[in-house]
Amino acid sequence: MSPTPVTTNLPTQPASYSWEATDEEVAARYGVPLESILRFDLNTSPTPPEIAGRILAGGAFDAPLSEYPPSDYRRLVETAAGVYGVGRDELLVGAGADEILDLIGKAFLPAGGQAVIPVPSYAMYRVVTEQRGARAVLVPRLGPDAGWAFDGEAVRSAAASADLVWLCSPNNPTALPEPDGAIARLLEAIAADATAAGRLSATVVLDEAYAEFVDRSLVGLRLEHPNLVVVRTASKAYGLAGLRVGFAIARPETIARIAPYRPPGSVSTVSVTVVTEALADPAGMRANVARVDAERDRLASALREAGWGVGPSVTNFLLVDLGTPERAAAVATGMMQRGLVPRTFPAGHHLAHALRLTIRDRAGNDRLIEAAREIGA
Amino acid sequence: MSPTPVTTNLPTQPASYSWEATDEEVAARYGVPLESILRFDLNTSPTPPEIAGRILAGGAFDAPLSEYPPSDYRRLVETAAGVYGVGRDELLVGAGADEILDLIGKAFLPAGGQAVIPVPSYAMYRVVTEQRGARAVLVPRLGPDAGWAFDGEAVRSAAASADLVWLCSPNNPTALPEPDGAIARLLEAIAADATAAGRLSATVVLDEAYAEFVDRSLVGLRLEHPNLVVVRTASKAYGLAGLRVGFAIARPETIARIAPYRPPGSVSTVSVTVVTEALADPAGMRANVARVDAERDRLASALREAGWGVGPSVTNFLLVDLGTPERAAAVATGMMQRGLVPRTFPAGHHLAHALRLTIRDRAGNDRLIEAAREIGA
Repeated sequence: MSPTPVTTNLPTQPASYSWEATDEEVAARYGVPLESILRFDLNTSPTPPEIAGRILAGGAFDAPLSEYPPSDYRRLVETAAGVYGVGRDELLVGAGADEILDLIGKAFLPAGGQAVIPVPSYAMYRVVTEQRGARAVLVPRLGPDAGWAFDGEAVRSAAASADLVWLCSPNNPTALPEPDGAIARLLEAIAADATAAGRLSATVVLDEAYAEFVDRSLVGLRLEHPNLVVVRTASKAYGLAGLRVGFAIARPETIARIAPYRPPGSVSTVSVTVVTEALADPAGMRANVARVDAERDRLASALREAGWGVGPSVTNFLLVDLGTPERAAAVATGMMQRGLVPRTFPAGHHLAHALRLTIRDRAGNDRLIEAAREIGA
Repeated sequence: MSPTPVTTNLPTQPASYSWEATDEEVAARYGVPLESILRFDLNTSPTPPEIAGRILAGGAFDAPLSEYPPSDYRRLVETAAGVYGVGRDELLVGAGADEILDLIGKAFLPAGGQAVIPVPSYAMYRVVTEQRGARAVLVPRLGPDAGWAFDGEAVRSAAASADLVWLCSPNNPTALPEPDGAIARLLEAIAADATAAGRLSATVVLDEAYAEFVDRSLVGLRLEHPNLVVVRTASKAYGLAGLRVGFAIARPETIARIAPYRPPGSVSTVSVTVVTEALADPAGMRANVARVDAERDRLASALREAGWGVGPSVTNFLLVDLGTPERAAAVATGMMQRGLVPRTFPAGHHLAHALRLTIRDRAGNDRLIEAAREIGA
């Protein structure tokens, strides 16, 4: 697939998140039992860490549930700052990474502004941008042969007149990180261009939702680049998507610009306590990553044997190239008739010929492997 | 206090929520033990319902915690719609009423727009307004002799050129509902003025966070007024502030205008399950309201005997007139030296001479009564 030109969108109606069908909707539409539904479309982990159940059963939380969560999320901030290796004043808590993206939009993206998105990427960047009344400047990524890397020169050029740049590494849905040094070079180039033009650098958001799967992070780049905001989450490797906790990491002066937009308590006290303990005891997360790694290799091999075009992945999901949009749709239907829900991409999308599939546990992956053998390539 | 004129504010820096000091901050500042801190400033209920602990211990939730919450919050929506007596398509779930206010702002308040606030009222209306880049038109309420009712003619007049009107009944922090029929008359007048001027009516938000304490609601007015959005919450009478669940109620076409701005899952799965069950079994809420009612009368009488100017209240909090800002500050200091945290109002605020005090449980209220006797009027 050759890259399409940069496109911009100034919506009259802002984009809204297109909801995944619920389990009930899939069951009804495909005539399969509700209990047979298995989600391969949400990039979650197969199970929550054991510690979650223990804390819930213990019933001791950071505050009684009749009171608001601590307005400074103090223990969670201290613990997360330690885990990410940053200062307490360099971290801000939100109700999932999605709320963090919203707060970043409010702080740095004015109505009428512009935000650059190397596409394909996480759909919410465009939603947040357009809901701010700003323009999404879509810069096509290099193709699969280049590991779906962003086009550094094109992003740099677009950033010169933008307020914000949305990066994601490892990138969803393409399952690979940006090449070594690419993000640092982009930050340097954006800073140099801004200095030369006598303007402020665009804010650069780096969504590291999947960073634990590669066991590395670029949070260190914030030290030289106060315009960088890194996003982390408890929803992926930590296996706690249902608790809705995410983080922004940046220099203190940058966090201070986001902080006025943070509502006083959007994160449940239960979530605060459980995620604090899960971050403090990362053995559960590491075991999950190891299991996902092993299952990813097993699942990818088996799907390739079934003839599916499985791309390389360092994450907890696979991008599967099925050749044509028609074949991707047919495979998606075949999966859903078996209660297995893939992430599909709409007609006209860069990846309309592909499906995105989350690594599940061994039994779940076996169901997918069996389906692939039956459906074929 | 005579009403001050209508004022408007177009901020260069938007207002941010001024955080309540945390327990730790109060303990450090006033040299009191952390465990002695008791919050009279947050209008929460004294204890969560028993059902919350049972559900947490049981560990069965609407989805595994490693998965996202159900994107339609189906069971919660069904249950809440039943409790509030509205259709499922007339209700939208948010992470506390605060997220509902934010979503309403996104849907109905453009940058450069105007929102009317009868003041004093809940501080977040102004924060949401100014963070949208809109102008807050502050219309003083009638004084305490008029039960702090909004000034119907002044609000009507301001609404004629506004996008949004923020109402709150019973009103926080003045502890009384609007007079019978006042909100219906205002809605009629706004509709008539809009028709006469050939424009759309302003959206009218009615925050009923404290409605359970008066056991009545004006959600029925939505049937005639599709521009009305009623806000409800699990944080007050239901005693579940720590779980962060709130609701918008309006006609289906109005909910449909808010829905695109709702993020796919800002509410934790644990919160979804617990609040669903708490709404389905309102005995805990009713018992809490009965206890709060009894304690409110007892606390108000005792504080009056201590010479404090306790105003009438139908809610779970009292507005206490201490005559002057200096005296209010001195009483607040006296309370905090005893570990009791009041809601204060800043210099220049309509209520700088007053404190707002939440009804706590019997033992907690006894501590406040003892403090009042020692501090004096």
